[in-house]
Amino acid sequence: MSIRIFVTGGTFDKEYNEITGQLFFQDTHLPEMLRLGRNLVPASIRTLMMVDSLEMTDAQRSLIVQACAGCDEDQIVITHGTDTMVETARAIADDVEGKTVVLTGAMVPYAFGSSDGLFNLGSALSFVQALPPGVYIAMNGRSFPWDDVRKNREAGVFERLNA
Amino acid sequence: MSIRIFVTGGTFDKEYNEITGQLFFQDTHLPEMLRLGRNLVPASIRTLMMVDSLEMTDAQRSLIVQACAGCDEDQIVITHGTDTMVETARAIADDVEGKTVVLTGAMVPYAFGSSDGLFNLGSALSFVQALPPGVYIAMNGRSFPWDDVRKNREAGVFERLNA
Amino acid sequence: MSIRIFVTGGTFDKEYNEITGQLFFQDTHLPEMLRLGRNLVPASIRTLMMVDSLEMTDAQRSLIVQACAGCDEDQIVITHGTDTMVETARAIADDVEGKTVVLTGAMVPYAFGSSDGLFNLGSALSFVQALPPGVYIAMNGRSFPWDDVRKNREAGVFERLNA
Amino acid sequence: MSIRIFVTGGTFDKEYNEITGQLFFQDTHLPEMLRLGRNLVPASIRTLMMVDSLEMTDAQRSLIVQACAGCDEDQIVITHGTDTMVETARAIADDVEGKTVVLTGAMVPYAFGSSDGLFNLGSALSFVQALPPGVYIAMNGRSFPWDDVRKNREAGVFERLNA
Repeated sequence: MSIRIFVTGGTFDKEYNEITGQLFFQDTHLPEMLRLGRNLVPASIRTLMMVDSLEMTDAQRSLIVQACAGCDEDQIVITHGTDTMVETARAIADDVEGKTVVLTGAMVPYAFGSSDGLFNLGSALSFVQALPPGVYIAMNGRSFPWDDVRKNREAGVFERLNA
Repeated sequence: MSIRIFVTGGTFDKEYNEITGQLFFQDTHLPEMLRLGRNLVPASIRTLMMVDSLEMTDAQRSLIVQACAGCDEDQIVITHGTDTMVETARAIADDVEGKTVVLTGAMVPYAFGSSDGLFNLGSALSFVQALPPGVYIAMNGRSFPWDDVRKNREAGVFERLNA
Repeated sequence: MSIRIFVTGGTFDKEYNEITGQLFFQDTHLPEMLRLGRNLVPASIRTLMMVDSLEMTDAQRSLIVQACAGCDEDQIVITHGTDTMVETARAIADDVEGKTVVLTGAMVPYAFGSSDGLFNLGSALSFVQALPPGVYIAMNGRSFPWDDVRKNREAGVFERLNA
Repeated sequence: MSIRIFVTGGTFDKEYNEITGQLFFQDTHLPEMLRLGRNLVPASIRTLMMVDSLEMTDAQRSLIVQACAGCDEDQIVITHGTDTMVETARAIADDVEGKTVVLTGAMVPYAFGSSDGLFNLGSALSFVQALPPGVYIAMNGRSFPWDDVRKNREAGVFERLNA
């Protein structure tokens, strides 16, 4: 059985526009990253949107939930901006059952060399194969159940609610 | 509880000697890689040896087995050359019980930029937390039980014995 | 005789702040870049400011001119944002005589991996040793006299006025 | 007028073979490196050979000399292994007149991330435009006339004969 990867944007896939000096979205780096990791787990990638998660609308969040519920695969990885990752995880948990869904992201764009993205992608792909059905966030080398995690914005890390 | 990481060398940690043009071992890149991955899982690293796995002796392999059996941790990641990784996994499985041991490595040295090492490290650290006790190899985004895996040397990938 | 390198900021030295998602200045990467290039030309680096060149004030521009005029060295490299590099070159040409001054910069931050910065630094350091006294801009592998160059902002490249 | 770039191999263009663990030659990285440096100097690249300079034969060295003498361009950059770069420079100086020829190389393969290759390429392309006719080596940020340079193999750097 194949793993489904949904791309939604986030820091993970941000690029530097050398004309304007701004960060922006172009195509996802996921295929290149899977190739770099010599990944051989069957995985089909679909880009749902390319947005900064602070600007994600309710309609876009619903679209992610429907994509998870509607796809054939039972193991789903979602790349997502870190700022509202927990909110999207909760929305998925409300509506999707019997599947293992793992959200991950990055603190530094993959294109910027020193990214945590490749590490997190290896982590998310592994957790999604090994964890029982449920919705999780994979960041900082750890997996968190969707209802026991928050982003500590000052430190830029994810942590349990009752650590 | 903390994860124990044993370093044994392998392609993972090879360097380029710019005077001789040869590859060689210096210090491990594990601490830098964990920092890059923003890893927050408590992990203590110990370098057991720095060898090419084709040159690993029986005595060195025994030392790895003893280190796994003797350490306090129940979750162990071992970085290892890919050529004899399966052999070491078997030796550990013969002697170590009740612990989750995950061996991983790299096809390209981490220092060479386009390495699979960071992806594999994220993968191994995640599998070791999520899999039940046993000895596994984490490569190519997958986990393999020690007794159902071989390295396909022509293709440079790991695969099940009965795929 | 040594070469003097003045750092003024610009895209060259921008960093990614993983907490805010903004670009910002920290320390210059010049020493690391010279080490990476195995540079053995005696060079002393001095950071005059760390600013985006669109925000450079007249007072700051004067400070650069005075630094060029006042230093002991006759060969000077200046790292500078590309947007007002030509303006600073003109200010230096008005006041500094008998020295070879080469301004360079980058379209992509050095820290972002795919930077032109290392190439441009090698270029600027070479032109400053080989060109006669005067003020030049070194970008895109070429050297331009200060009074025959402009930045083509649409294309993100430097070109002669009468190409 | 365009610059001619002759590729002859050397550490510059070595790759890591992940199946055998050996270093080897594939295609040159020159076009990619010029793109990365946003180079706009007209330059035409021709690969003459892909060899380790310790294994370069007299016939191959003659071929390089003939290529320099026979091409239309008066400005020539040659990428070359560092070990016998001085010997090739001498052979060119014996037979080629009225052209500026700059040999350069790298201590670390470009593909290995921390290479001096991009810095050296920027340097060589600049020296070849600014120096008078003659044969030079561009390494370590400096240019050396062909008859006043040697490679210090212990230190891995180039230096003047009478420094």
